Amino acid sequence: MSLIINNDDEDEFVEKQILNQLSQENYAPVRLRSFINHYGTVRPRISTINRLRNHFNKFFNTLNCLYIINVLFDRIPIIRCLKEYNLRKNLFADIMSGMTVAIMHIPQGMAYGMLTTLPPIHGLYVSFFPVLLYMIFGTCPHLSIGTIAVISLMTAQAISGTPLQSFNIINNQSYVASNIYDEIVINEKVGIATTLAFLVGLIQLILSFLRLGFLTVYLTEPFISGFTTGVAIHVFSAQLPFIFGIKSPRGIQGAFKLPRFYFKLIGSIIQNINWISTVIAFTSIIVLFTAKQLNDRYKSIIRVVIPSELILIIIGTLISHFTQIHTFHGVSVVGPIKQGLPSPTPPPLQQISYLIMPAATIAMVSLCISISMGKMFSRKHNYKVSSNQELLAYGISNVVSSFFQCYPSSGALTRSIVQEGSGCKTQLVGGFSCIVLGIVIVALTPLFYSLPMGCLAAIVIVNMKGLLFQIKDFFFYYRISFLECILWIVTFMTVILFEVDIGLYAGLCTSFLINTIRTQKPHFVVLGQIDDTEIYKNAKLFPVAHQYDNIKILRFDESLYACNSPFFKRKFYELIGIQLRQEPLISYKKQNLNKIENIKYNYVILDCSPFNFIDTVGVKLLIEIYNDLKKRNIQLYLSECRYGVRRTLELMNFYEKTAPNIIYITTHYAVMSIRTESDTNLPKVTIATQV
Amino acid sequence: MSLIINNDDEDEFVEKQILNQLSQENYAPVRLRSFINHYGTVRPRISTINRLRNHFNKFFNTLNCLYIINVLFDRIPIIRCLKEYNLRKNLFADIMSGMTVAIMHIPQGMAYGMLTTLPPIHGLYVSFFPVLLYMIFGTCPHLSIGTIAVISLMTAQAISGTPLQSFNIINNQSYVASNIYDEIVINEKVGIATTLAFLVGLIQLILSFLRLGFLTVYLTEPFISGFTTGVAIHVFSAQLPFIFGIKSPRGIQGAFKLPRFYFKLIGSIIQNINWISTVIAFTSIIVLFTAKQLNDRYKSIIRVVIPSELILIIIGTLISHFTQIHTFHGVSVVGPIKQGLPSPTPPPLQQISYLIMPAATIAMVSLCISISMGKMFSRKHNYKVSSNQELLAYGISNVVSSFFQCYPSSGALTRSIVQEGSGCKTQLVGGFSCIVLGIVIVALTPLFYSLPMGCLAAIVIVNMKGLLFQIKDFFFYYRISFLECILWIVTFMTVILFEVDIGLYAGLCTSFLINTIRTQKPHFVVLGQIDDTEIYKNAKLFPVAHQYDNIKILRFDESLYACNSPFFKRKFYELIGIQLRQEPLISYKKQNLNKIENIKYNYVILDCSPFNFIDTVGVKLLIEIYNDLKKRNIQLYLSECRYGVRRTLELMNFYEKTAPNIIYITTHYAVMSIRTESDTNLPKVTIATQV
Repeated sequence: MSLIINNDDEDEFVEKQILNQLSQENYAPVRLRSFINHYGTVRPRISTINRLRNHFNKFFNTLNCLYIINVLFDRIPIIRCLKEYNLRKNLFADIMSGMTVAIMHIPQGMAYGMLTTLPPIHGLYVSFFPVLLYMIFGTCPHLSIGTIAVISLMTAQAISGTPLQSFNIINNQSYVASNIYDEIVINEKVGIATTLAFLVGLIQLILSFLRLGFLTVYLTEPFISGFTTGVAIHVFSAQLPFIFGIKSPRGIQGAFKLPRFYFKLIGSIIQNINWISTVIAFTSIIVLFTAKQLNDRYKSIIRVVIPSELILIIIGTLISHFTQIHTFHGVSVVGPIKQGLPSPTPPPLQQISYLIMPAATIAMVSLCISISMGKMFSRKHNYKVSSNQELLAYGISNVVSSFFQCYPSSGALTRSIVQEGSGCKTQLVGGFSCIVLGIVIVALTPLFYSLPMGCLAAIVIVNMKGLLFQIKDFFFYYRISFLECILWIVTFMTVILFEVDIGLYAGLCTSFLINTIRTQKPHFVVLGQIDDTEIYKNAKLFPVAHQYDNIKILRFDESLYACNSPFFKRKFYELIGIQLRQEPLISYKKQNLNKIENIKYNYVILDCSPFNFIDTVGVKLLIEIYNDLKKRNIQLYLSECRYGVRRTLELMNFYEKTAPNIIYITTHYAVMSIRTESDTNLPKVTIATQV
Repeated sequence: MSLIINNDDEDEFVEKQILNQLSQENYAPVRLRSFINHYGTVRPRISTINRLRNHFNKFFNTLNCLYIINVLFDRIPIIRCLKEYNLRKNLFADIMSGMTVAIMHIPQGMAYGMLTTLPPIHGLYVSFFPVLLYMIFGTCPHLSIGTIAVISLMTAQAISGTPLQSFNIINNQSYVASNIYDEIVINEKVGIATTLAFLVGLIQLILSFLRLGFLTVYLTEPFISGFTTGVAIHVFSAQLPFIFGIKSPRGIQGAFKLPRFYFKLIGSIIQNINWISTVIAFTSIIVLFTAKQLNDRYKSIIRVVIPSELILIIIGTLISHFTQIHTFHGVSVVGPIKQGLPSPTPPPLQQISYLIMPAATIAMVSLCISISMGKMFSRKHNYKVSSNQELLAYGISNVVSSFFQCYPSSGALTRSIVQEGSGCKTQLVGGFSCIVLGIVIVALTPLFYSLPMGCLAAIVIVNMKGLLFQIKDFFFYYRISFLECILWIVTFMTVILFEVDIGLYAGLCTSFLINTIRTQKPHFVVLGQIDDTEIYKNAKLFPVAHQYDNIKILRFDESLYACNSPFFKRKFYELIGIQLRQEPLISYKKQNLNKIENIKYNYVILDCSPFNFIDTVGVKLLIEIYNDLKKRNIQLYLSECRYGVRRTLELMNFYEKTAPNIIYITTHYAVMSIRTESDTNLPKVTIATQV
């Protein structure tokens, strides 16, 4: 095929020549059908049974010893890691990184542990057991598993949502000493938390076995940002009572939880504020904040992360211990902490019915936070993180840890960044961190007796800074993408005004709805030719683009399917200037349809390049429009249909119901071919009228 | 710009010339940026405030007398209809059509009325009042409003789901005569049904005022088909007890309703079957069925619709009356019917809390059935049906009718087709039909005393035929579109196995999910040039398409956004042959990334023509890939980006983060430009190495 376009001046001779050539060749490779006959091949369709058989064959072929060993290596990545471990290169870096992270684990573990309404020691357990297990099964060396604010808060909510059976026991007894009562309640709460961890792990394992790791793609960035920001505000609010040294308002349930909480809190602060607590907490916040700022600024010079949180805890404990502010000024302190690692006890699983929904929510949230972080690090350091293997690792971590009085764990952003920054090389970092933590849990917990709760609250609040500042994401999305902004704000507001889990589901539903809404009213534009190139562009954006007298070229910037086909129809007729009747009374005459409306063109080309798929409703609409336009003496052509669309058209017998040659390969070929056609047609008409 | 491509033989000289020309012009109109500078215009962005101001100005300008009259005419279409009524042309046709439809209304009204578990007369009321009101406010002359099986069944379900207060009254009294008891219960049921109609109308009016008529686009064809088929099976099942002359099994609630219903029903049939009833019902079904078949076959000859249902009712009543089968053989008959039109009574609105959800469901179902029919007729006869005006008409019909002991009404398919076929011209058809029905209600109801219930059940069943046969839609969708098939079967199965309303919501959720799933794993293909044209096609489908040594051209057949960006990334690297590392241990070296993988090309072009939009996640991914490829000495180019995509890229500072000239106008220009570039680059390299 020869194709010459001379664009500098309209050389009519040359153009005629091409068109004639095209017509001589019977438009061979110009129309889709002939084009495919000429160049194409038919894709062999494999029947479903054969496809299944292939899958099974593949599966059985792999059942040999080597393969199984390989799978085992894939499932337990630490084997490969140990096998290939380079002592000289990695050991020192890993030990240093492990120590740094362990030093962060101690205060954070206690602070977040407190957030769950359990004794702080359980936070330390969560900093120990899941880390150890993730080291064995995880694939991302930079991810620091353990306590995290969001999950701790959600655990607290799950615990408060479960009715305690010990209330009944206590009510039945005539008199129970206050400390015994407290112990019974705390034991039961620990039981609930471990059951929760067990369920969370179980759900993650099931997801992993079903290979449903891909589901995390639905947890999109605006959604995660809105969700975590909302949760951060909850976490922040939960710390305020500790900051002001008062008791947390209780029994707030249902809608508008947070506003009502603040209402009660302010009243409580005015009545019972403990000034010493407040001063300690605010001093701690300011100190931590400055330390972090300094750390960030002089990172390049000192090259070591200052363990500001640990220093704060040590100083706080010392001051508190020697001034005895607990006894004399009623400042609440951590109090007695159990010593030693817990012996394995199965989670009680009694109140499982109350915990399934919270567990599902926690599993999903922990999943999306951890995996999104894992992916971030893998992008940065160019290694592969497998969603399904990660799921397996989280699942095993949670299930096994639940036997050691742990509540649900997850990957933590702040610690992971420190772990990465302190030069971690392999998963073994987790092991070295555990050694330090083990020593603390076994030997050093009594030292924390006098640590003021305000210090722990300060640590949480300062760590929330990044998440709270995500509010600026809202303005980012507002500027760039209206629908993503809607998703952000809906998720954020439902998290704030209702429970965390309601926010999760509302956000998910919104993100599905948005995918539909986005395709509702796409651009529908009239195209024009740019100079004499084969490029056709939106005539509104490119004023140079010229339109032919008798050809209208349209492009609908979205796949045509059920939800936008009414819009397509309305807009299509609007653009080609045909008004669908308003008055049902005027009788319908076929002949003079277009005379009324003064339509001057006879051809409409629909550029189908934006059609990524078409459904049955869309095909029916195209057939309907084709036939309607035919009545009005207008010919509809399509161009640039891709394989998927063509296949649906074929299955729907589109060509039989319209015309076999309705599709052109490109818009430009369609225009050229139409121009030849009308050139050859027009003279005939004039002759006919002359006779 | 001059562009000459000679394709018959590879004339190198000519090709070089073009490429040189392009390079001389500094690729001016080839790259997007220069193209826009050369030809384009910047679309003026109107600020939100100005846009709102424009809207308000437009609104206030319209507040004049003429406009208000016009709006009134639009809202009450019958005024225009009467003004322009052509007595000679339309009157006779309208009267004949009105009579025909009225004759259908009588048996159907009673049969569907029976389906609601109310006395059959209420079905006749529904055939009268809403029809009258729709005549005034409706826009579709061919639509026959009134009783319809689906809505009647849903009304019955709403009634059975509402606890009756009269049970309490009766339980408190020591002894109540059976007929008084029945009357109290029926009165309360009527109250519930009218409250339901009132609520349905109210919801439709609210939707109309909020101009939410467009929401019906979400009720897509596969969904409606699956839903109505499922409901038809419910309706069919509800008739079976009448067919076999037994009492309907009661108290079946919850999951797997229909299977459990059939289980009980079969037991009941075996025990209590009334043979006379069964014979009457089956004879009626066969007679009706044959009559309809004959009618269809000889439609062209006799040109009148035989009122077979009315004839059946008359004959059935006569036989039943003279043989007294009710008294002697226990065949259940219609019994005493109130005479005369009801006086206006406000609906009781007492049990409104139980009825809001069913009312919302009924409002949506009635809406989607009626509007889809209206659209069908408007397409056929080329007039416009406005969703919002229709909603107003249905709303007013239901609200006002609810004062006259009517249950919710809707447009009926079978009657509408008869109305169209019998030559209806204008809305006035409704009025003529009402005259006939008025006479029947006022004077003739006592005549139906002896009508066997089996005859009415037969009428319902024969009318369900079309809906039940929609099951073949499933096979249609199975063949053509997997996802639409899934939607159909999910909707159908949930309707059958659970309640009708659960099915509705499950179907809606599925249809939203499907829109997301569809975009998950699109085709991602490598393109090749066809001969020497500017056409680039999937190299797998077109084996002729040839790929250049150092250029990879890719096309991702879907918009790139959060939910498919992980797939995009994985597949992208797979297609260009780069393996993302599995082992986290090997240290990352920038220099020899590609040497390991033997990558031979230096350019990747991503054809963006299928991108209908891109979101922030997608843009970030493109930036990430661009920078990653740059490290590997591969240059990424985009081509054919449309306005929406370009705008998001600009807002995200895409050009600053990658390269200002990353986008080419077309894939072909990109290829040409790259070939010139590499031609000019390569010699330099050789010289450098020679030195």
